[in-house]
This record gives sequence, C-alpha cells and structure tokens, in this order.
Amino acid sequence: MSLLDDNRLFPAEPTTRRIARSLYDSIRSLPIISPHGHTEPRWFAENAAFPDPAHLIVVPDHYIFRMLVSQGVSLAELGVPSVDGSPVETDGRKIWRRFAENYYLFRGTPTRLWLDHTFENLFGIETRLSAETADAAYDAIAEKLRQDDFRPRALYERFNVEAIATTESALDDLAWHRQIRDSGWKGKVVTTYRPDAVVDPDFAGFAENLKRFGEITGCDTGTFTGYIDAHRSRRAFFRDHGATATDHGHPTARTANLSPAEASALYGRVKGGAGSPEDRELFRAQMLTEMARLSVEDGMVMQIHAGSVRNHSASIFERFGRDKGFDIPQPTNYVAALKPLLDVCGLEKSFTLILFTLDETVYSRELAPLAGVYPCLRLGPPWWFFDSAEGMLRFRQTATETAGFYNTVGFNDDTRAFCSIPARHDVARRVDCAYLADLVTTGRLEEDEAFELARDLTYRLAKEAYRL
Amino acid sequence: MSLLDDNRLFPAEPTTRRIARSLYDSIRSLPIISPHGHTEPRWFAENAAFPDPAHLIVVPDHYIFRMLVSQGVSLAELGVPSVDGSPVETDGRKIWRRFAENYYLFRGTPTRLWLDHTFENLFGIETRLSAETADAAYDAIAEKLRQDDFRPRALYERFNVEAIATTESALDDLAWHRQIRDSGWKGKVVTTYRPDAVVDPDFAGFAENLKRFGEITGCDTGTFTGYIDAHRSRRAFFRDHGATATDHGHPTARTANLSPAEASALYGRVKGGAGSPEDRELFRAQMLTEMARLSVEDGMVMQIHAGSVRNHSASIFERFGRDKGFDIPQPTNYVAALKPLLDVCGLEKSFTLILFTLDETVYSRELAPLAGVYPCLRLGPPWWFFDSAEGMLRFRQTATETAGFYNTVGFNDDTRAFCSIPARHDVARRVDCAYLADLVTTGRLEEDEAFELARDLTYRLAKEAYRL
Amino acid sequence: MSLLDDNRLFPAEPTTRRIARSLYDSIRSLPIISPHGHTEPRWFAENAAFPDPAHLIVVPDHYIFRMLVSQGVSLAELGVPSVDGSPVETDGRKIWRRFAENYYLFRGTPTRLWLDHTFENLFGIETRLSAETADAAYDAIAEKLRQDDFRPRALYERFNVEAIATTESALDDLAWHRQIRDSGWKGKVVTTYRPDAVVDPDFAGFAENLKRFGEITGCDTGTFTGYIDAHRSRRAFFRDHGATATDHGHPTARTANLSPAEASALYGRVKGGAGSPEDRELFRAQMLTEMARLSVEDGMVMQIHAGSVRNHSASIFERFGRDKGFDIPQPTNYVAALKPLLDVCGLEKSFTLILFTLDETVYSRELAPLAGVYPCLRLGPPWWFFDSAEGMLRFRQTATETAGFYNTVGFNDDTRAFCSIPARHDVARRVDCAYLADLVTTGRLEEDEAFELARDLTYRLAKEAYRL
Repeated sequence: MSLLDDNRLFPAEPTTRRIARSLYDSIRSLPIISPHGHTEPRWFAENAAFPDPAHLIVVPDHYIFRMLVSQGVSLAELGVPSVDGSPVETDGRKIWRRFAENYYLFRGTPTRLWLDHTFENLFGIETRLSAETADAAYDAIAEKLRQDDFRPRALYERFNVEAIATTESALDDLAWHRQIRDSGWKGKVVTTYRPDAVVDPDFAGFAENLKRFGEITGCDTGTFTGYIDAHRSRRAFFRDHGATATDHGHPTARTANLSPAEASALYGRVKGGAGSPEDRELFRAQMLTEMARLSVEDGMVMQIHAGSVRNHSASIFERFGRDKGFDIPQPTNYVAALKPLLDVCGLEKSFTLILFTLDETVYSRELAPLAGVYPCLRLGPPWWFFDSAEGMLRFRQTATETAGFYNTVGFNDDTRAFCSIPARHDVARRVDCAYLADLVTTGRLEEDEAFELARDLTYRLAKEAYRL
Repeated sequence: MSLLDDNRLFPAEPTTRRIARSLYDSIRSLPIISPHGHTEPRWFAENAAFPDPAHLIVVPDHYIFRMLVSQGVSLAELGVPSVDGSPVETDGRKIWRRFAENYYLFRGTPTRLWLDHTFENLFGIETRLSAETADAAYDAIAEKLRQDDFRPRALYERFNVEAIATTESALDDLAWHRQIRDSGWKGKVVTTYRPDAVVDPDFAGFAENLKRFGEITGCDTGTFTGYIDAHRSRRAFFRDHGATATDHGHPTARTANLSPAEASALYGRVKGGAGSPEDRELFRAQMLTEMARLSVEDGMVMQIHAGSVRNHSASIFERFGRDKGFDIPQPTNYVAALKPLLDVCGLEKSFTLILFTLDETVYSRELAPLAGVYPCLRLGPPWWFFDSAEGMLRFRQTATETAGFYNTVGFNDDTRAFCSIPARHDVARRVDCAYLADLVTTGRLEEDEAFELARDLTYRLAKEAYRL
Repeated sequence: MSLLDDNRLFPAEPTTRRIARSLYDSIRSLPIISPHGHTEPRWFAENAAFPDPAHLIVVPDHYIFRMLVSQGVSLAELGVPSVDGSPVETDGRKIWRRFAENYYLFRGTPTRLWLDHTFENLFGIETRLSAETADAAYDAIAEKLRQDDFRPRALYERFNVEAIATTESALDDLAWHRQIRDSGWKGKVVTTYRPDAVVDPDFAGFAENLKRFGEITGCDTGTFTGYIDAHRSRRAFFRDHGATATDHGHPTARTANLSPAEASALYGRVKGGAGSPEDRELFRAQMLTEMARLSVEDGMVMQIHAGSVRNHSASIFERFGRDKGFDIPQPTNYVAALKPLLDVCGLEKSFTLILFTLDETVYSRELAPLAGVYPCLRLGPPWWFFDSAEGMLRFRQTATETAGFYNTVGFNDDTRAFCSIPARHDVARRVDCAYLADLVTTGRLEEDEAFELARDLTYRLAKEAYRL
C-alpha cells in the first residue's frame, strides 16, 4: 500500500497524462535549487539530530497549526511557544496525537500532499495518518530521527539539494554560515540580506536597531548617507557569506523616488522611532528604491514579497507573537506602486527585481504586463497560500500568455519545514509538467520545446535568476 | 426524449466521470437541508394551491426577469408589480409566452439548468421550451398546480426536505410560523432573524422601525442599552420559532469595536433617522459586532451577506421598488473590515460566523486565509451570481487548498423560487462530486475519503454548522 | 511538416474534441467581421505593397517588441522609431534576426500562435523560426510581399473579410476613406469616431484641438453647446464615411451626470487646457454621458475601453513616445462609475453601449451582472492582454452564467497587425467552439444549440451589435 499516487497532479486525460509523465520523468531527478527559504543555518553548522516528530513537523509549521486552530484546537495545546510565559503543551506525543486525529482536516490541501510525501518517501510510512495510526507513525519517525543519516547534512544530500538560501536579518552576525563554510562540508548554504529590522520604522525596536546597525558597520547611521553606507557595507558582508539576493517583506509594494534632501529629511523624522504612519510608509517606499539602486551597484538580486497584513489577531499576537498563522493577504497594487522605482532602475539590464504577490488577481492584470516589458522584472513563483497545485496552475494560466515563461524564475519553497522541501519541489515539477503537457496536447507547444521548458522551469531559470 | 443529460456537470474524461457518477449516486437521495432561503412561511401555513405558471415561475424570479430585461423586454410586460401604480401585464399566459419565446437567452446559464430540471422532474415536460411549445408547457404546469399533491406541503415532502429556513424581519410577528407549528404538520420550517430594518439607518422608515421595535419587545429603544436588549429579546422570540441563525445583508463587511460610551453616542446620532453617511456606515459596522456578542451569548449562528450595491437603476427603483434584478456586486474587503469583530469574538469556540461574498476574488486572497485560521469562521457557499456550476467549481478550487473542506458549510439555495430548490441542490451535489472525483483521479484524495466528503458537503456540514 | 496542429485549442478529451471539431468545421469559413481595429485606411486606399518583413511584422507590433524588451533587447535595436531623433536600427534583416533568435521567448503566448498561423497559412513557411531559419523566412516573406496578390486589397479578399472598421481621430479628414469609396473597390472599410483628442483635457494639444474642432465643423467650440454641436456634426461626417460606432479610451470608466449649467462651467474651466486633475477627470466622465446622449440621438454604437495606465515608463515615453508596450492595466470599477450614464440612458432600447475591460476580475463581479440586466449594455470580447486562448476561455467561464451569450458581441481583433487578423479570429473561433463543446459534453447545452451559437458568436452577434 502507498500513500502516494504515482501519477498525482497529472491531467486525467490519458494522452495528456502520458506527455506529462514523460516530461516529469525527464526532470524528476534534477538537483533542487532552493533560492529563497527559511531553514536554519544552525542545522547545517551543528549537524545535530532533529528533535521529536511533533517538534520537527507540527510545532514550527504554520500551515499545520493554523488549520487545527481553525477547527478549535488551541496553539497552546499544539505546543506552540508563548511569548507571555503562559504554559503550552510540551509532550511531543500528545501534540502528535492531536495532529493525527485531525489529519482529515487537510484533505484537499497542499499540506496533505507534502506530509504524505514526507511520511512515505522519507520515513517509509505507508499507512494514512489518523488517531489509530498516530503512535506507530510517531515511533517510526522518532526512530529515524535518531539515525545519523537523518541529520541535516545527510538530509541535504539525500534531498539532492544543489544550493539552498536561508534568510537572515541585516543585524545577524552570520556566524552559523561561517561555521558551515569553515567546516569543509560541501553543501552550498548561502544567506540572503533581509533588512526589514532596519528599514521598516514599524519594526519592533527600530531606533535601537539603527544604532546597532551603525555599530556593526562602523557607519554613522545618524545621517541618511551614513545609513545607506551601512547597507552598502552590510550587503558586502552578506555577499561574503554567499548571498546573491536581498528580500523585502513589505505590507504594500509602494516605492518612492524622493530627492536626496527629501529622503534625508524623511529619515530624520523616522529614525528615532517616531514619524506619522504616512512617513513610515513613505520611508519603506523610498528604501525599496534605495535598495534597487544598491542592487544596480553591487549586482544583488532584489525580491519584493508584498501584501500581507501581519498578526491579524490582537490576542494571538499578545500571547504567541509573530508568525502564528494569522497573517492574511490584502489587495495589492503594483502598477502605481512600482512606478517610482522603475523610473529609476527599470531599464537597467544588469538589475533583477523578482516580484511576489499574495493577491493573485494581479498576475494577469498587473504583474505579467509589467514583467512582460520591463527588462529588470521577473515573476516569483506562487507563494505562501498559493504554493499549491491549483495556485501554481492558475499562475501559469494567468501569467504565461503575457509574460511568457522566460520572465519567471522557477520555484521557491520559501519554507522552514526542511523535510517538506523535496515534496514542495516535486509538486511544482508535476504541476509545471501538467501545464506543459496541456499546451502540447492542445497544439500550443511542440514536444521538444516542452522538454526544454521542463528543464528550464525546474532548474535553469532559478539558477540563472538568482545567480547561484 | 429528455431535457436533462443524466451525466450533466460531471467531468468529460471517462475515468473521472465514473468516479463522479458513483459519488453522486451515493448522495443524490439524501434529504435537503436548506438553512438559508426566502420561501414564504405562509405557503406552508395555508397550504393553498400555487397560482398560474407565470406567476409561480416567471414573475417572482429575478434571475429570469433580469435576463429578459437585458434584451429589451420590460418589467411591466413581464407582470412584475409596480410600486407607483402604473399598469403591468396581468395575463399569465401572455407573460409565459414572452418568457418562452426568449428561452434561448438562458443558454449556458444556471437558470436554464434549474428550469429544465423543474420542467422535467416536477411537471413531466420533456420538450424544450420555445415559442412553439409555450402553450403546451403552460397548460401542463397549470394542470399540475391544480392538484393537491402540488400544494406547498406536498412539494416539501416530494422534494425530500428535512429542514428549511425562511428569513423574517426583526419586526415580523412570525404568525405564519406559529400557524405551521400549531397545525401539527411534520415539516420543519424555521425562521431566521434578519434585523436590517432596525440595524441599518438607511433602511426606509428606520426611526419608525425603532419605535415599533421598542413596542413589540417592551424595551426602551430610546437608549442604546435598551435597544440591544430589544435585540436580545427578539432573538429569543425568533428562537422560539425555530430560528438557529441570524442574517445580515450589509453593503460592506465593515465591523467596528466602539466603547460602550461611543456606541451609545453614535446610536443617539442615528436613531432619529439622521446622522452622516459615515455615522450610518459606522453604526452598521458596530451592530455586526454587537450581533456577534449576542451570538456568543445565545448560540445563534451569524451570517454576513456583504457586497451588493442595491437598486442600481434609479428609474427602475422608482417604478418597481427593491429586488428587481438591479442589485450589482462591488469589490468587498474582509481583512481590515472584520478585524474589529474578530478581535472581540474571533477565538470564541462556541461562536459560528458564516461569511458570504459576491466578490469571488476574495476567496483565495482573504476568506480562505481567514476561515483557515479563525475558529469561529466558516465559508458560506457561492451565492447569488455564483450559485452556478462554474461559480461553485471556482469556489472549491480557490478556497479548499487554504481553508480545507471542513471550514465550509455545504450548500444554501437562498431562493424564493420554491420549485427550483431540488434543482439547485442537485447542481451543487453534482459539482461537488465532480470536484472530488477530479481530486481522486489526480491523486490528491483517496476514494474512501471522497465518499465521506460527498456526504459531508451534501448533508452533514450544513446540518452541523446551522445547528439544525 | 507543419507549424500548426490542426486540432489546436480544442479540448484534449476525445469526445469533447470531436464536438469542438465539428462545431469549428461548421463556422471556420464564415467571413470575418472586424468591427473594431487599427489597420490603416491608407493601405486600402493606395493598395501599395507592404514594406520588408521586419517593418511589416516586428516593428509596429507592441506584442512582439515588448516581449523582446523584457529580455533586454532595446526598442532602438528593433527599429522602433524614436521621437527625440536618436538613431534606431533601420536594417530590416538585422531586426528580423534579433527577433528570430529570440523567437523561443514567445512559447506559450498568443503571439506565437498568431505568427505561426501567419507564417504557414499566408507565407507558406513550415519551419519553426529561429536564428538558423531567420534568413530563409525573411527571404520567403519578402518575396511574397513583392507579389500583387499580397497587397492590402488582395489580402482583404484572401482573408475573407466582409467588413473592417478602422479608428480615426475626430479631427481626421477621412480622406483615405473617401479615396477607398471613390475607387470603386468592393471592400467594406468603415471608420470609427474616436474623439479622445477633443474630449480628454490631458490629451496633448487639447486647447489647440478644440479650436481646430470648431474650424472643421463650423461650430463655436468656445461654448459647451457649440462644442456638443461640433460632436454632433462630426459624428454625422463620420457616419457619411461608414462609421456605425464610436470608441472611447479612458483611464477609468467613470461617468457623470452634471446639470447643463455645471457641465458648461466645467467646460469653461478645462477648455483652455487648464483645470485641476479632478476637473479633467470629471470632464472625461461627463463627456461619456454626453456621447451616450448623442448615441441615443443618432444611433451610433458606443464603446468604452477603460482601465489602461498609459506610458508607464517615463524614459521610454520621452524617447519613443506613446504606444510602446508600456501601457499597463489597473483595477477598474464599473458599478459606481457607470451609474450616472446608466441613470440617463441605461434603459433606452435603441442604445448600445459595449464595455471592454483590462481587469478581468470585473467580468463575474460587475460586468456580467450589469450587462445581464441593462438593455443597452453588451460585453466586448476579451481585449489586449486577454486576446488569448486562456483569456477568452476565462471570459466565457466568468461571464456566460450571469450575462448569457446574447449580451456579448462576438470577437474584435483590435489590431494594427493586418496579417494577424485571420489568425486572431481563428483563435477566437476555436476557443468558443471548445467552450461550447464542453457545455455539450457536460450536459449544459444541446448540440443543435451549440451549432447555432457557434455561428452567432462568430458572425451574427458582431454584425448585429455593430449594425454592420
């Protein structure tokens, strides 16, 4: 018995399925390029065994715990750590049982596909998870996790990863990355420059962060020029630790193009942690353009992840803090928002700006038309709530006709759930092959082109776009 | 000859079709739960024969008359009653002929599916409606309507309805519901608390309505506390007549969380029928939160139907009044709009808030992410313009991956077209089975799970969510 | 070998494909009605040979050059004329080679389908375009273009065009149209009234344009009444040159219904080229309603093409001017926007207003509900970025259930790429047949109805809606 249908995600119609199958067979074994994600560099630096199944799989995965919360299980019962000191469940087996007895809730979701893939391919489990099978699955996984070949570096190799990017704050010392490099291990784990803590005036401790930013770079962050120099310096430091890209997680995609004097005055108003909401938003906007300018200078690929309303529930935020599944997308405009930045750097041929959205209506209306003409723009893969079979298919169906394939950049797993990485890439590969097969069967693409594209979408475009 | 394809709405691909067929066969005979609709309690109370075919089928159905109007037939020619005393057609046969000769206009619409289902399954007609067949169809239907087993209670039983909810104004005396209860008839016809007339300051006669609201409840609606008490009391009265739910039809989904003093002051500004547009909108917003609080108290399920611009044509509204097919959806935001209410009641496990939308872009962007984490939230079925095969399929495709199936509540027919109820539920059952079959064929769901889900989506989820 | 799959764009499932095929075979040879487009009347007047392949196919087609620009080729390298006098490539063969070596970029786009159709059916080329085949293709096309039966009138006949509309400014003297008419040639080439230059205060030279508008009509454009009379007169002049329609390309769909005094005062504020941004937008809005009134008077069909942000890149606009592929759609609302106009003319049975959108989310939410009830409204085909197989299919899937088929108007090619016209109509015919076939296979339409609809969508609806 198997948890996985070997033809999953391929079209039902037999001719198209055969083509999808053969496309997939041609690329299924290609190495994984994971140019954007949130695994911990410490894992690869220390190479320690992972903890118990619940604390590896359930507790850190917001896809999993948010669904359970939606049906009345509390975060505390699932062992999610509180920030207010209130007690939460610590017994891994109890957490696992709660998860297992509610496993039916994931029917029809990508989480179910990722988990079944992980259970079967990584842990050798072939029985569907449920209240009845909870303990057996727990024991089977726990036993594997004690083995050396289930440690982080071994998994990296088993997963056939060629390169993986983590994401660190501009204030991070990147010590784990240095430790990886110095260890002599051959895995390619690079960092990504994520400056939200020193770019977003609404970030907790912003004024303190700027001080520290000055200290670690030796730049005078009391002035705007010094502050920009601090970024310049820190970006170089990150590049020394393998970074080829920066990442910017803003509530909107707004950019601005202020004069140096205006930008400097604005910095003066926000740097102490004050400033009106409009000043704060304008500063974030201006900083996207400044970051684009630095990318033109230093060649780092820029990514904008826009459109999430963070921490929607006030009481969850108070008790459990950030990233607890209560981030909700909002309508996001890119056309007016990006114009200031694009007027500055949009035609620079050496510049790459990768755009992500949580508002899928913008693919056909805004992002594909923009990426289909500006040389710097590329479309990031469907992200977060759209990292799913239907989401990926709609992305191709709404973006390709206007932007083509070559203004896209392959797949990002964007995850901290390390074990799910092969499953996520496998879903993306299958969906892309299904889409290509449909183009072939309906006379929109010839087979030789589909085979070339399957390889491009799986491997080449990610590697080239991210300069990995 | 038949008007209906036995495999209608199932996927074309034979393997998937076979699975859809067998899923459907397993649930097609389940009783109908109709937890939200607009049939008349008077029908079941009096159990009188329905009028002629045109006045049963054409005149009250805005799906039908709006399409005819769009092609140049006037509401007056279709017998739709005027509010200004101007004459309208009264001859049922003439109205029916106008409808029949334009029946081709409904090609590709759900109305066509519902009508053909009704013609064939209820009235035994097997010839397509047209100018040529108009009279024969009219006579056949008229003859049936004279028979005792086509009276409302007989149809309720013939349709295999297990429970049906009507919708009444907070000011309604619910006399018909009492008459049904007192009659000894076994049908389950319950009311729903719809307080727009005493919650929306823009509702015609708002100030008068509040006075009457005070009189019938014995509460002092001159003060905000007394006004809330009036709701509390009236909700109890509705529960005594079977109500398990409330329904709120607002132009937007905006909610508010004012302090008691602010709310009281706001009530003071609007209760006389005055208040600025912003005050009126804010009062509606605040009242959604107050209604949520009362639901936490008394256990009534809350429904928000947001996003319709009512009475778009000024001249139609003047001559024919409300609900004449000129209500048009508008973009509707839920993320910021619902936050105040959710901050108050969002994590209450005993509270159920069912959300409906006429802006389908919000399913994947806002509603599925919200319902996929807040324990109180459930997604209502696709409603009104989306109560259709393609609309339902897009709902599943855009909501399931993030919210799963178990944050949805089965199907609502939401109709006053009593004869169409079995047809509408049949469409929903077929589309859900088609969707489930596709998940099975593409390896995203196993067959035993699909059978369980088919039953849940058809029957169990509606019954449980609405506590019927 | 062939570039084209004979079954392209038909559904993969064999039964549905057979039905699509037989529907298509029944309408594939129907004449082309092209009621909205941008071909040059001069071509048909002079009937001169077209220039070299690059200047016929690549240089004027923004679908082609925008994709090449998006991947780093410059407009200058592609020979697109500059407006600032800076040099651009003039060698057709060099331009063609750049295009050919990047032909793979068009995989999955409608441009690829149109070009392959043109290469094979018009120019007899059966080898895929690439760097290797560039010269051979260039020579083959150039050789055809020198032949008399590849001149404009011969192509019109070869393409089986029954009527084609061009688009001219209100200030155009229509001399080419007179020359066509006087030539005795039987082709039907009609003009369309496009008054942006004298309706949009933001149009370059607006004040000058108004003066000239007065001169050529003999009306006093110094007053609002005289200005409206000038439109009345000019519309009659256009009707004398075959026009049956007007076209309005506004950034939004906003309309207004000012009193005569207010409108006159507003005209006073903007006519000199001044006026606030709000005045300018309000004037455009008011003029849509004025144009609707004139359409009620004179029977011209009105078209609104709304929602494009023009000339997004400042530096491209400076160097190359308008229409260089940098027009990007924006979210567009129709519900509130059209209400003022519809309150004036919405129920006029002799009036036809055809709506186009670049924001496809409005089809199901706004446009289908509006067109499904207002007698004057019709839905234009998917336009510009949505003139594609997936775009057309989504249009049918999101509009038909609410508006039906008979509130749509067939296909527009909307192109200046003359050679692509048969290809574009062929794509539309195939997609409509595919959609109809799916309705038949899934029991939503009977086959005889599908055959009638295929003919209606291909031919009759366009001819009737545009009164051609």
